[in-house]
Amino acid sequence: MSTPLRLGIAGLGTVGAGVVKIVQRKAELLTARTGRSVEIVAVSARNRDKDRGVRLKDYAWEDDPVALARRDDVDLFVELMGGSDGPAKAATEAAIAGGKDVVTANKAMLALHGQDLALAAEEAGVALRFEAAVAGGIPVVKALTEGLAGNEVQRVMGVMNGTCNYILTRMEHAGLPYEEVFEEANALGYLEADPTLDVGGIDAGHKLSLLSAIAFGTQVDFGSVELEGIERIEIADIEQARDMGFRIKLLGVAQMTGRGLEQRMAPCLVPADSPLGQLEGGTNMVVLEGDAVGQIVLRGAGAGEGPTASAVMSDVLDIARGIRVSTFGQPASSLEKPVPAKATAPAPFYLRMELQDKPGALAKVATVLGEAGVSIDRMRQYRHQRTTAPVLFVTHKCPREALDRALVAMGATGVVEGHPVAIRIEEV
Amino acid sequence: MSTPLRLGIAGLGTVGAGVVKIVQRKAELLTARTGRSVEIVAVSARNRDKDRGVRLKDYAWEDDPVALARRDDVDLFVELMGGSDGPAKAATEAAIAGGKDVVTANKAMLALHGQDLALAAEEAGVALRFEAAVAGGIPVVKALTEGLAGNEVQRVMGVMNGTCNYILTRMEHAGLPYEEVFEEANALGYLEADPTLDVGGIDAGHKLSLLSAIAFGTQVDFGSVELEGIERIEIADIEQARDMGFRIKLLGVAQMTGRGLEQRMAPCLVPADSPLGQLEGGTNMVVLEGDAVGQIVLRGAGAGEGPTASAVMSDVLDIARGIRVSTFGQPASSLEKPVPAKATAPAPFYLRMELQDKPGALAKVATVLGEAGVSIDRMRQYRHQRTTAPVLFVTHKCPREALDRALVAMGATGVVEGHPVAIRIEEV
Repeated sequence: MSTPLRLGIAGLGTVGAGVVKIVQRKAELLTARTGRSVEIVAVSARNRDKDRGVRLKDYAWEDDPVALARRDDVDLFVELMGGSDGPAKAATEAAIAGGKDVVTANKAMLALHGQDLALAAEEAGVALRFEAAVAGGIPVVKALTEGLAGNEVQRVMGVMNGTCNYILTRMEHAGLPYEEVFEEANALGYLEADPTLDVGGIDAGHKLSLLSAIAFGTQVDFGSVELEGIERIEIADIEQARDMGFRIKLLGVAQMTGRGLEQRMAPCLVPADSPLGQLEGGTNMVVLEGDAVGQIVLRGAGAGEGPTASAVMSDVLDIARGIRVSTFGQPASSLEKPVPAKATAPAPFYLRMELQDKPGALAKVATVLGEAGVSIDRMRQYRHQRTTAPVLFVTHKCPREALDRALVAMGATGVVEGHPVAIRIEEV
Repeated sequence: MSTPLRLGIAGLGTVGAGVVKIVQRKAELLTARTGRSVEIVAVSARNRDKDRGVRLKDYAWEDDPVALARRDDVDLFVELMGGSDGPAKAATEAAIAGGKDVVTANKAMLALHGQDLALAAEEAGVALRFEAAVAGGIPVVKALTEGLAGNEVQRVMGVMNGTCNYILTRMEHAGLPYEEVFEEANALGYLEADPTLDVGGIDAGHKLSLLSAIAFGTQVDFGSVELEGIERIEIADIEQARDMGFRIKLLGVAQMTGRGLEQRMAPCLVPADSPLGQLEGGTNMVVLEGDAVGQIVLRGAGAGEGPTASAVMSDVLDIARGIRVSTFGQPASSLEKPVPAKATAPAPFYLRMELQDKPGALAKVATVLGEAGVSIDRMRQYRHQRTTAPVLFVTHKCPREALDRALVAMGATGVVEGHPVAIRIEEV
């Protein structure tokens, strides 16, 4: 039996406490699996006195996570504080500089500083792993980095923010508007302190940028993720989409195209009978597409104590087993700087607008679409409500630019009230 | 850059040719990911002259796979011949004895000899890995062994024979009887030379026994897998199940109960709106349940050149990266001999019978069920067809023994024509 793997854990929130519980309660099982005992030697958090439902007094306490990261008796630094900069980054850098392996659940830190940190880890000869940063308990970082290592990855998609999926499915099932369900979710404690991180797609965008780096061998580039939140999704669109066999999801899509790397985190329509379309509530789903393997779908809890702690432990136990894989699947020094695609790949679109009750109104709109090169797959006009009638289009595949030209021209026709809603339909 | 990893590949069928293609066409990508070049040095197959669509003349040829396994210039022996014994086993043993790592896609060999082979590999200090043996391209062995290593696994379920799922979903959608769809599948080349391997559940049972060993830290015990094929599934049951919100799947279930290890591969009813219930055609799905992570669902192609070669490459590239994990997730010498559960866990059941047109017939059947301790959740009686009427029951959860007692007693009532159909409903 080799020497124990000694952990220093910084951050004792839900996930930190979950990790402590697993290490304490499953010592024998973990040792049987890895051939090495896993021990916690020191911990750090903001408030020493808080009751976290776990016994901590056997461990050294550090007020300063950087001091924890520097301790001589720590082999592996587990960063569970969160925050892209500040103490989390300082402590991670200190651990790496001190020759310690690092496991983190911090998507924001890696989305913004992943390349620098991975380079530093590489130079120091230590591991920097982050299974828990993406899609909670789903072992997707491992599946992509190791399971699909023989594939050229073609596309990565994912519903990776449970709160947004909860809001969208709750709107649909209860027939409630966004604002009302947002308040409900807030009252239930489902939202981050800054809710824009969730509903603005930022949190999910962070995760997408990490998967994208692994998938395409490129440096993490969160800055070029096209971000659109769910704040403007109306119940009318959810219902109309459903009627036409689609559901609306906050979907992340990353693909390498001839025009560069495309990364989008935005509401999309997906077929209601696809695995993504069937996803309810707070569950996460990631879809990986490789040239050899075809499509692999992974589904599970994207947050919460147990699932996230399970992912943290997956990295910890890999290290206990001696498994060492580069942070993004290949040496950070060999990752290329991606060229962001200037335009997104063509797609079909869903369009909803309010058409004024004037003769020839529909013809004008149809003409404008045709002139912009947007052809129509399906159309529905509903009965007039007061002075306007809701009209829906599903277009054939077209470039987003063509659609945007049509939308501008539509404004000039004088027959469309307000702004039309346009949502991409992702072919899954 | 370290020395190349030199492969010897035995078996050049669909999967073998797929592996050769990946190694040849992606040399640069694979080296970037693993830091080591992967080369094929020698191959072996039954027929040297067959055109396999890949260039083989740069590799040494061995007629005898055992000779291939013994070659000094082979570091990693890739066994893709199949067959539980014979050349595959002899060559695998020779490779291990010669200190070579082994990657295999051979579920039958591992289901029957996995413990012995894993022990031998352990003693020789070599790796023996088998991602491709279970659920094709889905990286489920890795997800379970490494991704869920921090969990106590509670249950593993899976639809792991694409042919059976194709037959069952095709019966449903086309409204055709089993025999007819079986012939179709045979004509399409979907069936093994011995179709019992597929439709009898043996192939899927092999896979289940391998996952079960990893999940519960027990020696592979295919012999105690309760096996039931799909040959007796009638279109009437598929349709009735659907009407009541269920679908019939050939489902593998492994769980550790207070009464021992339960392993079943048998037709089950699952809710139509569950991920398992939504699975169409030849796709595979594995559901992993752990105490921390909750439920993880993995879906993908279970067979075919690309997916299976992708899984083989996952193991090959792990070894190139220096990742070494015990065959079943912990040292083979520490795996316990499982105690097979004598009885399966209680479950609700679906019952269909033909009731004779006699006064009091339904009352008799209901009485018999009640006396056996089987309570009824739902019941439907249909209009009489000639002399009998179809009657369906969904029971509450009950022990299989109680149901069997009721079925025997039912035979004695004289009001039930032929044998009732009883199918377990799995709570997923």
